[in-house]
Amino acid sequence: MTGIVVQGIERAEREVAAALGECGVATVHEAQGRTGLLASYLRPIYPGARIGGTAVTISAPPGDNTMVHVAIEQCRDGDVLVIAPTSPCEDGYFGDLLATSARARGVKGLVIDAGVRDVRDLTEMSFPVWSKAIFAQGTIKASLGSVNVDVVCAGALVRAGDVILADDDGVCVVRREKAAAVLEKAQAREANEADKRERLAAGELGLDMYDMRGKLAEMGLKWV
Amino acid sequence: MTGIVVQGIERAEREVAAALGECGVATVHEAQGRTGLLASYLRPIYPGARIGGTAVTISAPPGDNTMVHVAIEQCRDGDVLVIAPTSPCEDGYFGDLLATSARARGVKGLVIDAGVRDVRDLTEMSFPVWSKAIFAQGTIKASLGSVNVDVVCAGALVRAGDVILADDDGVCVVRREKAAAVLEKAQAREANEADKRERLAAGELGLDMYDMRGKLAEMGLKWV
Amino acid sequence: MTGIVVQGIERAEREVAAALGECGVATVHEAQGRTGLLASYLRPIYPGARIGGTAVTISAPPGDNTMVHVAIEQCRDGDVLVIAPTSPCEDGYFGDLLATSARARGVKGLVIDAGVRDVRDLTEMSFPVWSKAIFAQGTIKASLGSVNVDVVCAGALVRAGDVILADDDGVCVVRREKAAAVLEKAQAREANEADKRERLAAGELGLDMYDMRGKLAEMGLKWV
Amino acid sequence: MTGIVVQGIERAEREVAAALGECGVATVHEAQGRTGLLASYLRPIYPGARIGGTAVTISAPPGDNTMVHVAIEQCRDGDVLVIAPTSPCEDGYFGDLLATSARARGVKGLVIDAGVRDVRDLTEMSFPVWSKAIFAQGTIKASLGSVNVDVVCAGALVRAGDVILADDDGVCVVRREKAAAVLEKAQAREANEADKRERLAAGELGLDMYDMRGKLAEMGLKWV
Amino acid sequence: MTGIVVQGIERAEREVAAALGECGVATVHEAQGRTGLLASYLRPIYPGARIGGTAVTISAPPGDNTMVHVAIEQCRDGDVLVIAPTSPCEDGYFGDLLATSARARGVKGLVIDAGVRDVRDLTEMSFPVWSKAIFAQGTIKASLGSVNVDVVCAGALVRAGDVILADDDGVCVVRREKAAAVLEKAQAREANEADKRERLAAGELGLDMYDMRGKLAEMGLKWV
Amino acid sequence: MTGIVVQGIERAEREVAAALGECGVATVHEAQGRTGLLASYLRPIYPGARIGGTAVTISAPPGDNTMVHVAIEQCRDGDVLVIAPTSPCEDGYFGDLLATSARARGVKGLVIDAGVRDVRDLTEMSFPVWSKAIFAQGTIKASLGSVNVDVVCAGALVRAGDVILADDDGVCVVRREKAAAVLEKAQAREANEADKRERLAAGELGLDMYDMRGKLAEMGLKWV
Repeated sequence: MTGIVVQGIERAEREVAAALGECGVATVHEAQGRTGLLASYLRPIYPGARIGGTAVTISAPPGDNTMVHVAIEQCRDGDVLVIAPTSPCEDGYFGDLLATSARARGVKGLVIDAGVRDVRDLTEMSFPVWSKAIFAQGTIKASLGSVNVDVVCAGALVRAGDVILADDDGVCVVRREKAAAVLEKAQAREANEADKRERLAAGELGLDMYDMRGKLAEMGLKWV
Repeated sequence: MTGIVVQGIERAEREVAAALGECGVATVHEAQGRTGLLASYLRPIYPGARIGGTAVTISAPPGDNTMVHVAIEQCRDGDVLVIAPTSPCEDGYFGDLLATSARARGVKGLVIDAGVRDVRDLTEMSFPVWSKAIFAQGTIKASLGSVNVDVVCAGALVRAGDVILADDDGVCVVRREKAAAVLEKAQAREANEADKRERLAAGELGLDMYDMRGKLAEMGLKWV
Repeated sequence: MTGIVVQGIERAEREVAAALGECGVATVHEAQGRTGLLASYLRPIYPGARIGGTAVTISAPPGDNTMVHVAIEQCRDGDVLVIAPTSPCEDGYFGDLLATSARARGVKGLVIDAGVRDVRDLTEMSFPVWSKAIFAQGTIKASLGSVNVDVVCAGALVRAGDVILADDDGVCVVRREKAAAVLEKAQAREANEADKRERLAAGELGLDMYDMRGKLAEMGLKWV
Repeated sequence: MTGIVVQGIERAEREVAAALGECGVATVHEAQGRTGLLASYLRPIYPGARIGGTAVTISAPPGDNTMVHVAIEQCRDGDVLVIAPTSPCEDGYFGDLLATSARARGVKGLVIDAGVRDVRDLTEMSFPVWSKAIFAQGTIKASLGSVNVDVVCAGALVRAGDVILADDDGVCVVRREKAAAVLEKAQAREANEADKRERLAAGELGLDMYDMRGKLAEMGLKWV
Repeated sequence: MTGIVVQGIERAEREVAAALGECGVATVHEAQGRTGLLASYLRPIYPGARIGGTAVTISAPPGDNTMVHVAIEQCRDGDVLVIAPTSPCEDGYFGDLLATSARARGVKGLVIDAGVRDVRDLTEMSFPVWSKAIFAQGTIKASLGSVNVDVVCAGALVRAGDVILADDDGVCVVRREKAAAVLEKAQAREANEADKRERLAAGELGLDMYDMRGKLAEMGLKWV
Repeated sequence: MTGIVVQGIERAEREVAAALGECGVATVHEAQGRTGLLASYLRPIYPGARIGGTAVTISAPPGDNTMVHVAIEQCRDGDVLVIAPTSPCEDGYFGDLLATSARARGVKGLVIDAGVRDVRDLTEMSFPVWSKAIFAQGTIKASLGSVNVDVVCAGALVRAGDVILADDDGVCVVRREKAAAVLEKAQAREANEADKRERLAAGELGLDMYDMRGKLAEMGLKWV
């Protein structure tokens, strides 16, 4: 079904989403059982950005960004736009004008399984985007898609209101209803990592810290 | 026909070419009817560069950069080198020595549907390159190609003397004879965009600014 | 044969390895007869890094980083880790904890024909990595591989103790037993390049400097 | 959550699934509103196969086919196996022994977002497979995944019991609860197509048959 | 400029085009100086087809096949359709209905830098297609493109009326005005090849037949 | 070092090589500890071929097939040509004339990490080729490479005289000195597989045949 805009979606809590973003993609992905990653071909347009927000999803026809305009009206502070084309496309659906509009609604960034353009302006604005391509090829406004329906974006199912977090390591989705629980685990991992980092920096080996030697011997590893 | 160097080509006006570069790839591409883009796999070796110049074209055999040396003699202030191999290749045809030589002739940058090397030096020199690959694999000097013949570079036809503009969004070609007219349209778009940006920043929606609501209703969009 | 850790490998001299790194990948690759490059899809996680060190090699099952922990114990000052999975994989075998541990052993960087993660932390630590992918997908510790056996990494054969050098142009391997001889040639090239660079900057053409005109005429090049 | 085998799933009706397979992927995809396609990189191992069945889904770790054995026990007549690795992988999870076992349970074929092997034997057995790769690299049996959970396979969400149809054009999923309705529409399209085919074969133009001339004129098409 | 249909194009002679097809892509490509090949990613949907005809070109928006219908009206006996999307796309622009219509006009086949579908039907009809993808994803009819304008298809410039030949080795374009001359050279090569084939089959070595030994020695080849 | 032809190489026994070919790539790869596979992008030009022979290796410059002619003189009955370009290339190094010449020397087939052409003729001749690309783009004869030196082909190290086996599943290399031992293991696997196939065909489950249930329970698998 196409041509639907779902309004009034339920969102994960904004603070939880932001805190998950602080934990980072690698940590959160581990914390929720090594699931939820979008494909590695999504890359940030500039290094160093790190966000966590709630997904407003867009299912868009190839080369047509009508629904992005429709979606921005549905956005509110703390959201992240997630655009999935209905067939593979690398056209630049989004540029600095749309970013200006999205930012005016409080949108934190964009994740798009297609192209983006005006990346110099977006970088200057510090409006972060994770995309499959950077491509100046623009889009038209001729066909409908949908907003806030379930989409598969870069290989992962994203539902409106889910948490999307993204940083230099990629993009991860956390289900809305699990966000708080995952955050708790992620923060526990972080605390734990600080301790490990210190021990490793001091020269302790992972072999010892993780107590791997016995298991390795059992598996038959031979030092020659 | 191979082994030809066309001399005394007609070029687009230098000021027009430079001004097109200032407008940027996304804007110019729209201004000329959404045409002229080279493939998105051409990426800049460092962010932030933005050039507009006149094409000196090189058709080169795979892994052989003889004709780059020949082409540099044909260059003058405001030119951009455009290299298209005759079969797919990612070897590094061009490095800091050639860049030094090209710069001495006034060349503004390089667009190459193959590889480049010495990118650290090129970055330090601020000599911008848009390439398919970065690859230290050098080339030989054993076979002829041609200079200033029509080439297809990254999927677009480029003629000697055409305008080549490139920035973080990619690379675009504008036909020599249309350069002035396209510039006019591009500058008009730019003026227009500044106004739009302000309105969007103030919270006006694209749905209203572009007057999309009526058409969307007509197309059957449903808010649920 | 899997499940082997070769200890006490012979290494190229640390100073030679470091000096090769200073020469850079493009120069060294030429100096050793245009051989030894790893595939161009290996890219640095941040620009500007330049290393030369001695290889500690890891043959690892897909998605399993057990052997990285084993390998770190084998590392010493001036080494570079080289990880080759036994089937194509882009999982993130390595992150900031392993980098902390590796650095504590004096490791200069990582070359991996797979993925890496925590790249923001790695960048802050200035721990350089050349990888096929950046991917938050972690690995498990369930199966054995080998350390310091011959591996094919990104299309090139690497032996433990060989010199690995890497910079923005890519990655190159130099056989341990040839390292000193290659260094000599590379340094000679460098001296020679400085002179060429000056002449080209002054406007001399490569056509003249390399004495190409006669050969071009003989090959039938026509100026029209 | 990993390590789950969902038993006693609800399936689309076998006859409906088979009939959808007869309609073919292109027709069914149109009939359900141009949705449900898996990515085009899934290709059949031999031409001419055409199946429709009910999905038994497998979420598998990279390079580990433990769960395929687990899943076969859950299969019954008319099922299609759907394997999605948890990170990108092209190892050969499935060969002639597993096909023999699957066939003994009535399985009609395999769709896998990874590799397959023994394709000569599979071809001789007429056991159809749609895969991302053909690769002799085998898998291990060391880690758990899940069976009959929701998976994203080649970019599309597949639920256990959904209809999977596949032919030379690719692979499509139809939700279990919509299967009967989609079949009805697909068969209507088929009837309609036979008539169109005859008219076109007789020389009638699509321009006339679809009554496009007026709209084209309105859009501004010019014959010159 | 978009929205143009060029009528009454000049075509290469039908017999010449057909005869070039008989010579085959590899031979013709050599005969015209190793130029004119389209990219190797264009593959035939079934093996064994071999055609030569005159190009009717289509510049089409991504995911929109309006102009294919427009183009068919322009076709006549001996033509080959050449479709180039204006941005990269793998949607299935063409299926068995369009093939039926094209065949009724005498079209010999299709070359498309995008996707095709209904390949089982097309194979049964023996309607040959060379495409970038096979993908059931259909297209819409919402936007204009152009017919019989210059297009770049899979990296090669194609003009309406040029000769397109295609076989299992790929696709090649020959300029209309050079078709007769290229045919002559191609046929000469063929005659010459028959003789060579016999000598090689009888055990004569290429080293001797092409008189390579002297040159190899001069280049410094060493037998050890 | 380039420009070397190693003569009088030691080869694995012809009968052993042929017998390994009979076992097939998947079986042999398992038999030698899951090693030796070339990359999965090497694909046969037609289905059903299966060979095993001794490698004559060629290291060739990009786009230059001089050394293929040199290598054919070194071939004898039961050999397989293995071509590795020194930088990535998809040109068609080899066609029906070279195949005719190679066959006259008893060569069983070709494995090439680049392109091949004349595939229709090669198919008619039943001369099997596993290649990265099919591309009519021919090569020149201007530069030297080497014959019977170690090469890395599609990611695997191949030495002259090693066994190369290839079938629809891909290509595998077996070291010359291990060929007899690997054959023994491979044949043992084959015998064992026949028995398994029968049991599975009769409906026995892999879960039982491989005694997996206990281990799965221990790992925590849950049936729900």
